[in-house]
Amino acid sequence: MKAGFADRLVDATRRLGPLCVGIDPHPALIPALFGEAGPEAATKWGRAVVAQCVGRAAVVKPQAGLFERWGSRGMAALEQVCRAATEAGLIVILDAKRGDIGTTAEGYAEGYLGVGSSCPCDAITVNPYMGLDTLEPFVSVAEKTGKGVVVLARTSNPGSRDFQAKLVADSEGRGEPLYIHVAKALGPMIARLKGESGWSGLMLVAGATGPEDAARLRAAAGDALFLVPGYGAQGAGARDAMAGFVKGKAGLEGGVVNASRSVAMPESAKGAKAAKDWDRAVALAIEAAQAELVEAARL
Amino acid sequence: MKAGFADRLVDATRRLGPLCVGIDPHPALIPALFGEAGPEAATKWGRAVVAQCVGRAAVVKPQAGLFERWGSRGMAALEQVCRAATEAGLIVILDAKRGDIGTTAEGYAEGYLGVGSSCPCDAITVNPYMGLDTLEPFVSVAEKTGKGVVVLARTSNPGSRDFQAKLVADSEGRGEPLYIHVAKALGPMIARLKGESGWSGLMLVAGATGPEDAARLRAAAGDALFLVPGYGAQGAGARDAMAGFVKGKAGLEGGVVNASRSVAMPESAKGAKAAKDWDRAVALAIEAAQAELVEAARL
Repeated sequence: MKAGFADRLVDATRRLGPLCVGIDPHPALIPALFGEAGPEAATKWGRAVVAQCVGRAAVVKPQAGLFERWGSRGMAALEQVCRAATEAGLIVILDAKRGDIGTTAEGYAEGYLGVGSSCPCDAITVNPYMGLDTLEPFVSVAEKTGKGVVVLARTSNPGSRDFQAKLVADSEGRGEPLYIHVAKALGPMIARLKGESGWSGLMLVAGATGPEDAARLRAAAGDALFLVPGYGAQGAGARDAMAGFVKGKAGLEGGVVNASRSVAMPESAKGAKAAKDWDRAVALAIEAAQAELVEAARL
Repeated sequence: MKAGFADRLVDATRRLGPLCVGIDPHPALIPALFGEAGPEAATKWGRAVVAQCVGRAAVVKPQAGLFERWGSRGMAALEQVCRAATEAGLIVILDAKRGDIGTTAEGYAEGYLGVGSSCPCDAITVNPYMGLDTLEPFVSVAEKTGKGVVVLARTSNPGSRDFQAKLVADSEGRGEPLYIHVAKALGPMIARLKGESGWSGLMLVAGATGPEDAARLRAAAGDALFLVPGYGAQGAGARDAMAGFVKGKAGLEGGVVNASRSVAMPESAKGAKAAKDWDRAVALAIEAAQAELVEAARL
């Protein structure tokens, strides 16, 4: 049987490092080399990024929203990029931040994590605001198909202060931030998706712009792998990004650290006239980010 | 200039009543009359529901997740249904529950509420968990295009207790449910989308299964129109559904009450062999639900 999501992710990141390459097709930033900004250019660019990831990064994270701005044609582009990444043996975390009640959540869960999905991915990001019953269909399908579920806990944007960081009463009547309460409430689901590695495929988004928050989140959810956004363009350093990681076999481990623009749309690739120049610039940017993270993960 | 979203919605519901018809293509429930369950059948069924709404209900709410389970082909079906509803003069609230950081949220906002959208709608549902900065792009595009933004506050599912109902400290140090805190924090955005009717196109989802919560939400956000889910199949009665409405020109007003399966997939239409029998059964179900709501809204 195919190993579960957590074990596959931990195994692959132990080999290659914790970098997750974000595939975010900002229309204004897709190089002219790939054609006029639109779903066709996004497909070509996304596939080219995938090709440069092979052997250099274990995980990619396509950003659904930026594909979806082109409607169903954008979704078709997203499907092609996810298919290319899956076929290339990369682990695909689809950043879709979905969340809805029962039957609709079942639709999303089957549509993305189910067998025969037109948009194949290994895990999907979901929003917990509506409650545990809205996450259950994702966990339930993930259990059956060996996939993962990534729950937003503490995001990396300034607005994460507005609601996620609000203090709610804990079981002893003391105040704890909502994102800690969310992480604790996920305990049983984290246990259900736990692999042989000891890590769980119920991942948490743990924003890299708040290292203290990440450490606190780790204390609340010891087995959950973290998806750390905000490294690179959003400004957090490599060591800060791993504040929620723990000592593992070969160094710090416990999740992946995402970089998008800084590796998939690096300054150095901007002026590239030929595909091979762009390939080279992106390959180097991925290698540099991965090396920085691997170095920071050394004990 | 075309009237803003709130004014159009209030005007239309004053004429026809507060019913919002949910277009939720559950694969197992699409009648055989429309073909084998899939994006083609969902398109045909969705358009047929739209046709029966004309003159009987002012607002429809297609459920993105149930279309999206068929990937990009499902999204193309959703686009066709939204287009048909817009062309028929119905007000379309796209139930997509999106939410993401800056540039991605801009993608969603432009993709759905922007001019020339491939999936034309008058408003979209969004999730507030990530914070006010993630809602800003939607409000900003809505201001420019005269559209609406519907923020999840208190949803109608059992899991709404898990996080939305948690007590957080208010400005005076007393506990208030998170959904009330969310509603209060939206105050400036509610003001920005306020129309000549006095109502705002920044709507709140106010679950009909909790009438006391809806009344409390009304006290916290006096000008926000409410989208009330949970009427019909989810079990709440007509009067309960309007617990957050207030006395208006012709009766209770202040939002729309959604019914999905009970009107778009009524028991009475199940055995329909011919299109005209199905049309008739659905028309009667819509009329009956609308009449019940209009009656309950009488002062």
